[in-house]
Amino acid sequence: MATTEETRARAVRPNLTWVGTRPVRPDGVDKVTGRAKFGADLQLPGMLVGRMLRSPYPHARIRSIDTSKAEGLKGVKAAVTRDDFEDLPSEFVPAGEMLVNYRDMVRNVMAREKALYEGHAVAAVAATSAAVARQALSLIEVDYEPLPHVIDVLEAMEPDAPLLHEDLVTAGVEPPPEAPSNIAKRLSFTLGDSEAGLEEADLVVEREFTTRPVHQAYIEPHACVANVSEDDYAELWCTTQGHYVVRAFCAKLLGLDISKLRVTASEIGGGFGGKTVVYLEPVALALARKARRPVKMVMSREEVFLASGPAPGTHVWVKMGATRDGRITAAEAVLKYQAGAFQGSPITPGAMCAFAPYALENVKVTGYDVVTNRPKVASYRAPGGPMSEYAVECVVDEIAKTLAIDPVELRLKNAAREGTRTVYGPKFGPIGLIETLEQAEHHDHYRAPLAPNQGRGVACGFWFNIGGESCASLHVNDDGTVTLTVGTPDIGGSRASLCLMAAEELGIDFEKVQPIVADTSSLGFTFLTAGSRSTFASGLAVIEATRDAVRQLCRRAAQIWELPEESVRWQDGCARSEESEDAPEPLSLAELATVAGKTGGPIVGHAQLNAQGVAPSFGTHIVDVEVDRETGLVTVVRYTAIQDAGKAIHPSYVEGQYQGGAVQGIGWALNEEYIYGEDGRVENPSFLDYRIPVASDVPMIETVLVEVPNPRHPYGVRGVGETPIIPPLAAIANAVESALGIRFSELPMSPPRVLAAIHEGAGTA
Amino acid sequence: MATTEETRARAVRPNLTWVGTRPVRPDGVDKVTGRAKFGADLQLPGMLVGRMLRSPYPHARIRSIDTSKAEGLKGVKAAVTRDDFEDLPSEFVPAGEMLVNYRDMVRNVMAREKALYEGHAVAAVAATSAAVARQALSLIEVDYEPLPHVIDVLEAMEPDAPLLHEDLVTAGVEPPPEAPSNIAKRLSFTLGDSEAGLEEADLVVEREFTTRPVHQAYIEPHACVANVSEDDYAELWCTTQGHYVVRAFCAKLLGLDISKLRVTASEIGGGFGGKTVVYLEPVALALARKARRPVKMVMSREEVFLASGPAPGTHVWVKMGATRDGRITAAEAVLKYQAGAFQGSPITPGAMCAFAPYALENVKVTGYDVVTNRPKVASYRAPGGPMSEYAVECVVDEIAKTLAIDPVELRLKNAAREGTRTVYGPKFGPIGLIETLEQAEHHDHYRAPLAPNQGRGVACGFWFNIGGESCASLHVNDDGTVTLTVGTPDIGGSRASLCLMAAEELGIDFEKVQPIVADTSSLGFTFLTAGSRSTFASGLAVIEATRDAVRQLCRRAAQIWELPEESVRWQDGCARSEESEDAPEPLSLAELATVAGKTGGPIVGHAQLNAQGVAPSFGTHIVDVEVDRETGLVTVVRYTAIQDAGKAIHPSYVEGQYQGGAVQGIGWALNEEYIYGEDGRVENPSFLDYRIPVASDVPMIETVLVEVPNPRHPYGVRGVGETPIIPPLAAIANAVESALGIRFSELPMSPPRVLAAIHEGAGTA
Repeated sequence: MATTEETRARAVRPNLTWVGTRPVRPDGVDKVTGRAKFGADLQLPGMLVGRMLRSPYPHARIRSIDTSKAEGLKGVKAAVTRDDFEDLPSEFVPAGEMLVNYRDMVRNVMAREKALYEGHAVAAVAATSAAVARQALSLIEVDYEPLPHVIDVLEAMEPDAPLLHEDLVTAGVEPPPEAPSNIAKRLSFTLGDSEAGLEEADLVVEREFTTRPVHQAYIEPHACVANVSEDDYAELWCTTQGHYVVRAFCAKLLGLDISKLRVTASEIGGGFGGKTVVYLEPVALALARKARRPVKMVMSREEVFLASGPAPGTHVWVKMGATRDGRITAAEAVLKYQAGAFQGSPITPGAMCAFAPYALENVKVTGYDVVTNRPKVASYRAPGGPMSEYAVECVVDEIAKTLAIDPVELRLKNAAREGTRTVYGPKFGPIGLIETLEQAEHHDHYRAPLAPNQGRGVACGFWFNIGGESCASLHVNDDGTVTLTVGTPDIGGSRASLCLMAAEELGIDFEKVQPIVADTSSLGFTFLTAGSRSTFASGLAVIEATRDAVRQLCRRAAQIWELPEESVRWQDGCARSEESEDAPEPLSLAELATVAGKTGGPIVGHAQLNAQGVAPSFGTHIVDVEVDRETGLVTVVRYTAIQDAGKAIHPSYVEGQYQGGAVQGIGWALNEEYIYGEDGRVENPSFLDYRIPVASDVPMIETVLVEVPNPRHPYGVRGVGETPIIPPLAAIANAVESALGIRFSELPMSPPRVLAAIHEGAGTA
Repeated sequence: MATTEETRARAVRPNLTWVGTRPVRPDGVDKVTGRAKFGADLQLPGMLVGRMLRSPYPHARIRSIDTSKAEGLKGVKAAVTRDDFEDLPSEFVPAGEMLVNYRDMVRNVMAREKALYEGHAVAAVAATSAAVARQALSLIEVDYEPLPHVIDVLEAMEPDAPLLHEDLVTAGVEPPPEAPSNIAKRLSFTLGDSEAGLEEADLVVEREFTTRPVHQAYIEPHACVANVSEDDYAELWCTTQGHYVVRAFCAKLLGLDISKLRVTASEIGGGFGGKTVVYLEPVALALARKARRPVKMVMSREEVFLASGPAPGTHVWVKMGATRDGRITAAEAVLKYQAGAFQGSPITPGAMCAFAPYALENVKVTGYDVVTNRPKVASYRAPGGPMSEYAVECVVDEIAKTLAIDPVELRLKNAAREGTRTVYGPKFGPIGLIETLEQAEHHDHYRAPLAPNQGRGVACGFWFNIGGESCASLHVNDDGTVTLTVGTPDIGGSRASLCLMAAEELGIDFEKVQPIVADTSSLGFTFLTAGSRSTFASGLAVIEATRDAVRQLCRRAAQIWELPEESVRWQDGCARSEESEDAPEPLSLAELATVAGKTGGPIVGHAQLNAQGVAPSFGTHIVDVEVDRETGLVTVVRYTAIQDAGKAIHPSYVEGQYQGGAVQGIGWALNEEYIYGEDGRVENPSFLDYRIPVASDVPMIETVLVEVPNPRHPYGVRGVGETPIIPPLAAIANAVESALGIRFSELPMSPPRVLAAIHEGAGTA
């Protein structure tokens, strides 16, 4: 580990004052007093209520839509349908770090030729009240031709499955197939020779796993307010993980210049990847443009479930071989991810992640992106990762048990480390997986006794994290306070972590730094709060902007002192000249701020960058479960999340990420799923019937912060938000196996399914 | 004129595409459709109504204030008095280009020891409705001790005048006087030897002039909405000429960190200098802080007249000597400007401007800043200039008539020109006074016949203009459109002029550039829209920000072409490599924008500067009046405003400034005045009784744009907003003299005053 230790010394400065402390977040008081304004909290004079008409069919051709009766209703100010949006070509074009297909996006926002899932938007109205809007929806006449539907991913791949898109031909297959199908894409990653590797193995385990679509289940539903002036200058307020991306999408879908659309991100009541796309926003804009009045749209919880993106349901096949002493010789996987109504499941990251925690020589991963008559999937925390890693981590557990090797020991033996080549190309730099496994091995949780009907599981998780475009400006105010302007919406405390880095760089009190999340017209393009990038990428922008301001401060001091610029340095909040007998008294930030006007004008640091140098984060989770053999209820009784943060800028919010991710993983493992009827309609679109874990369902999630610095970040930051949702799925499955001796290969391990398995007494549920 | 011609060639680029054209302003449609949001147009949920209690006395000691009964009234959520504001030391501290005395400012915002004018704020309440607020005000018990008052500036200077401030000792007098007085400051400017100069003269004219306080009379009253969170993070929406200055003032008065106050400028329905100070804003913030709910405050028209700053009333003595052939040999003036209740009349600019249009060797100007029991004066379009220049331009006219020299000819003979030394120090660079006089001399208006009872007058005007701190950012969007972020509120079309310069620099269509006026947390400190500085100073910031973006665009092109940066230049909206056989195809802004992410991240240009290189603007106006001898009504029948713009970026809005300034000057000359009763109370605080010119009162104001470029601005801009209010006062007085043979020395020349003078048949009214 010498390399990593050296890196740590190189990357993180000693004697940090603010980085690593736990002040109250700047948005904290507003959030606990109810003052913070979320997506539905903006009121504008003359504002209309927008409501969506949605398809009752999972699959139907739309022969015609007649809104004339609705438009004739008193109080209805506008109605929109497919005719109010641009038709766009089918091509994948970049939007920040994403590739988006606008042809599909516009069809998901408003059904065009066909409705492709229950809840698919078909028309919308804006009216003076919710009651009028509701009545107007009932007056819209849609002539549907119902078509056969397909919900399951394996069924959708069958040759005779109902086709969602008559022109969809599988990409990534040579030669391209002649017939259309529901398989949008096939991809594969290969490293070494997995067949040869399997030959070497003393033990080969081959298993299949199924996971269900689960929803991000943010507490705040999608909501927005749109306003469009008579000369088509548009303003949008919405709850989103990235208002710049919303701007790009809406401008495209509505044919607006980007400069004529100004988007402000409200506070956000959870997103988890699900608020990286648009649903209501383009529709509200289209309504507002027609009505020339502000329009608010807010989804009901039912609409959130039916029409906003869950994570995909998947089918995963895994085959792994190992020698008797626990060396994994080869690994293969086939991933089938359902994309929902339009192509674009997270099959690529799923394939990247599957075997990433292991230093393997022979790997083969094949993936399929499959459309089905369900809502188009959206990103959900480490999109694609939990399902593939779940399957692999169950198989690794089985190998450990079969070979009678401690599962942590087996993982340590095969763990990815600095220099390990990934199946998707690059070699890892310094990473902290081994450190998390060592922490697990020595944690008292791992040795604590278990009660009857209890079992313990462990699993690892990996997420690569992303960088991307971010801007920041740092304004030095006359009174020595500082305003920090950033572009990433604050979900998990990023205002605090960004201000901590600015305070550290400036050498001033954290309280003196006040952050805002700027609107899209006030700061340059900034990509989403997603991919665990905000503290990393906006953080790099903040550090660079702060250093730009520091350079200006030093220049002003040099000017005042009539000394060369290069003789002035910044330390502990002051400009200082070189040590000498007659060195001038240091000038503090506040002192330089008051004379900014006289010395050349305002002092403002800026940065706009495409953040490079991102590093992955690995975690290891330990979980104890207790199974009620009479009801099939699995209760998590103890949970420890260990993860490498690189550097925890604000440890409380890093721990919060570990805890939140773990709890969402617990829900995925034990309870959450969409239940479809024969008619292709969702039977449980509510929090009563779709059960997410609440506080009383889970123990306090214990956390262990491991810090193996990312050498390419000034403080060592990696990004921590996504990795923690990955280990719980397998860790809990492994714990249930340990408690019951039954290895589940299907999630969720809900009471009916567990009870059935117990009654069967079988090895596989 | 060779020097100036050379300069013009040097300063302004040939072949301008956008600068000098007249597109529709970006805020135009919103303003004509009623969509634009002014100070009173923001609604927030739970918002309270704030109302001010004002002193009925022009001068009274405040023994006590009891708000307890008001606070006990149902629906009253907060009451504030002097106790809710910081007491601050009496010292002049810089706020941008201004020096402010916070001790006085806090006392003007809320009376402390004494009420110093009728309408002085004494307490305020915030309540759930206007009716409750009104009732609450009636329940506030204020124990006043009425004191003798003084309204007139000359009376206030008498030794036995009632004292407004017992500790006010005249500054600028050596040795300092022992006794306090109402004279806050004495200043003097001297050039050469005026006594000797008068000795040389063949003719000496000595006259005294009186002008009345006049109000800026913006149509939109002062209005704001304040909101303060439980952790004292404050937000303010207000109509202002400078939200950064409002932020600085309010932070000081309320003891807030600047970084914890975010101010957004609404659209503004006129300011003319009167919206450069705070009245309601700190009070609304204090109420919001107590109530923890949003508070809106809006002045009634009566409050605007009683409690917001008019221009000072003045008394001006002028003595000028000239040789028989019309050379002015010396000039002296004594200016007495009333400041209202607190020191700080615009006596300095008044003294700077008085004789500025003339190239004189011997000048002496003495000024007095005098407090009186009237509202504290505020800036009003060329603050201080119209009154001193009025007096001088009347005397110059008298000299011309006495010497039988054409008044334009006399002015041409003595006109300031490049190299003329000013009484306040610097020498003029290239200026356009002579060009405006030549335009006047050859204008058909100047030769047109006059009807009976008509007269013609001319006068010149000068304003120095200011620079100061401005920031700007220019965001290049993915689709090749551009967002321009500036900090100066748009009063007279600055969005258009700033976008024109950005479009010119970028070589893209004006329609592709969309401006916003950023809030104080989104862009660096930017000084007021005042001093005719927005197009000049924010313009320089815009040009610098645009050039910064262009540098980045060229760098990206160089990177794509793998060529050295210095081989790439920007022309006609494209990056181009040096001419050569194998030069790559030029890359347009839009092409470079789409690959910004891949080539390094967002492209954003920035500038923060303290604009230097400002240049003055001179004008010459010609006016024809017709006097109704039966009613005394003076009607303006023809008016021509000729002024040097340096360069008119958007000619229509420059012409608009000439027209608006002229009309305000017409009001000042003919109708506007505050009428005080013996009790020291204003008798005409309404637009019914305080008569400003309306469209039907004035002819179309003809304009002539003279363009003698400012060599220190890339396009030659000078700043044009203030100069045009100066000439009308004297030009009309001179025209009335020409019609009636009566030389008025007192403004306004309202029908009663004109009629009385006609009846007297005297030479002086």
